[in-house]
Amino acid sequence: MRFLTNRNDLTKRIALLIEYKGKGLVGWQKQDNGTSVQEEIEKAIQILYKTECHLQAAGRTDAGVNAFGQVAHVDVPKNNEFSTKNNFYLVYALNSLLRKTNIRIISIQNTSNDFNARFSATKRSYVYKFLCRTAPPSILTNQVWHIQKRVDINAMKLAANHLVGNHDFSSFRSTSCQAPSPIKTIDKFKFDFINDVLEMKVEAKSFLHNQVRIIAGSLIKVGTGLWNPDKIKQILDLRSRSKAGETAPPDGLYLEKVTYPKKFLNSKWPAYIND
Amino acid sequence: MRFLTNRNDLTKRIALLIEYKGKGLVGWQKQDNGTSVQEEIEKAIQILYKTECHLQAAGRTDAGVNAFGQVAHVDVPKNNEFSTKNNFYLVYALNSLLRKTNIRIISIQNTSNDFNARFSATKRSYVYKFLCRTAPPSILTNQVWHIQKRVDINAMKLAANHLVGNHDFSSFRSTSCQAPSPIKTIDKFKFDFINDVLEMKVEAKSFLHNQVRIIAGSLIKVGTGLWNPDKIKQILDLRSRSKAGETAPPDGLYLEKVTYPKKFLNSKWPAYIND
Repeated sequence: MRFLTNRNDLTKRIALLIEYKGKGLVGWQKQDNGTSVQEEIEKAIQILYKTECHLQAAGRTDAGVNAFGQVAHVDVPKNNEFSTKNNFYLVYALNSLLRKTNIRIISIQNTSNDFNARFSATKRSYVYKFLCRTAPPSILTNQVWHIQKRVDINAMKLAANHLVGNHDFSSFRSTSCQAPSPIKTIDKFKFDFINDVLEMKVEAKSFLHNQVRIIAGSLIKVGTGLWNPDKIKQILDLRSRSKAGETAPPDGLYLEKVTYPKKFLNSKWPAYIND
Repeated sequence: MRFLTNRNDLTKRIALLIEYKGKGLVGWQKQDNGTSVQEEIEKAIQILYKTECHLQAAGRTDAGVNAFGQVAHVDVPKNNEFSTKNNFYLVYALNSLLRKTNIRIISIQNTSNDFNARFSATKRSYVYKFLCRTAPPSILTNQVWHIQKRVDINAMKLAANHLVGNHDFSSFRSTSCQAPSPIKTIDKFKFDFINDVLEMKVEAKSFLHNQVRIIAGSLIKVGTGLWNPDKIKQILDLRSRSKAGETAPPDGLYLEKVTYPKKFLNSKWPAYIND
């Protein structure tokens, strides 16, 4: 196998829209201890293109975290039948190879060689789902965090307002987070009850390691009445991970959407071969 | 074990709100060939009350069909600790016994001895979910019908309008349907796309065997352009099962809600012990 670097004359760069159920996966990144999204898709691409490849994702989701709209890019040889046909032939072939996994390729677009799924992203949306009722989940097993207490959505909205904007999020990042700076900007939160599922949607250009899950674990303390909404402001100001709530389980977290400048990708990914 | 008949002095009637994932179940009704919802819940009640019981459901859903809001009634002895406490102690105990199944008791209400989960119902809502895209499901595996063609929701709405009202639904019932009459009244349809999931909601006082699934299998032929909307009217008029579309798979079908007169049940089922 040859390892292809990004050489315009031999390769073209494609972007993949990817869905996966996190249960049973060690996360996005290739690891020795289990099945990762990156490795499964790379293996499938290598089978079709008969060459090594390297996939880079918008967000390196942790073990158990789900995605409806992960995006990754990869360079593939130009002189291959999949590179000259409609991209949906590649979608079909990859999903066929991935059929025994919980990973699906929803759509593929051609992009330019200066596109980078991680660094070109202008916005990431995550959704965290809480199942709020006495009874444990059945239809949504492993897809929600089960909260057995009544949840006050308005208190959570008030608390979340303290986190909107540009802040030092040291209290809301994993102690193993390797980002050089704890400063991030949260653009907005949105809370909705859909029957007994509370969905917390949060948008930012980028997030720190575990930031959404620590925010979820903290805001739910407000929602269940253990903390008042202003406590979130105090925690933010203290800049200490130990002050915030627990890291919410990965089951409830979904990478929903990644946004890029129009020059790189069509914001509406084709869903069918004729789109 | 004693078998308790409905005797007001010894028993009280309770109504259960039940959720289940249909995959792996032979359906609501007790059968020799597998796990049924009825049998699993009856076994759990018998353990707690130390007496035989008989559960009657609003809808005897088929193998693989899901429910968010199945309702069933059962008579239980009055002289038992679970009959004198808040009903949520029974919810907790039943869910503990049912934990290895995909069946959950969401809520329990006391009702009167003339309440019947099947015959007192004034409205039943079913939802049928189609996943409309090239890629197979991952997060929604076994919870949708995967349709690989583009779907025209407006054509489906036009077609569904032919089915609203009081009609002879002979074309849209299972050949093994045992209802004495094929005449039913459909109150309304509602179609919504939620990302790539098309949800068809349909409401009626009651349905024939496989009626919703045969309607789903027929309307999707309109949605994918194989039939024009008026063909549904022709099929209805022909009163022959062989004219309609296939019976859609059970995975996509959900018994969503059953409505009863206020005198029997509070329409808002309590979700927590303090409600």
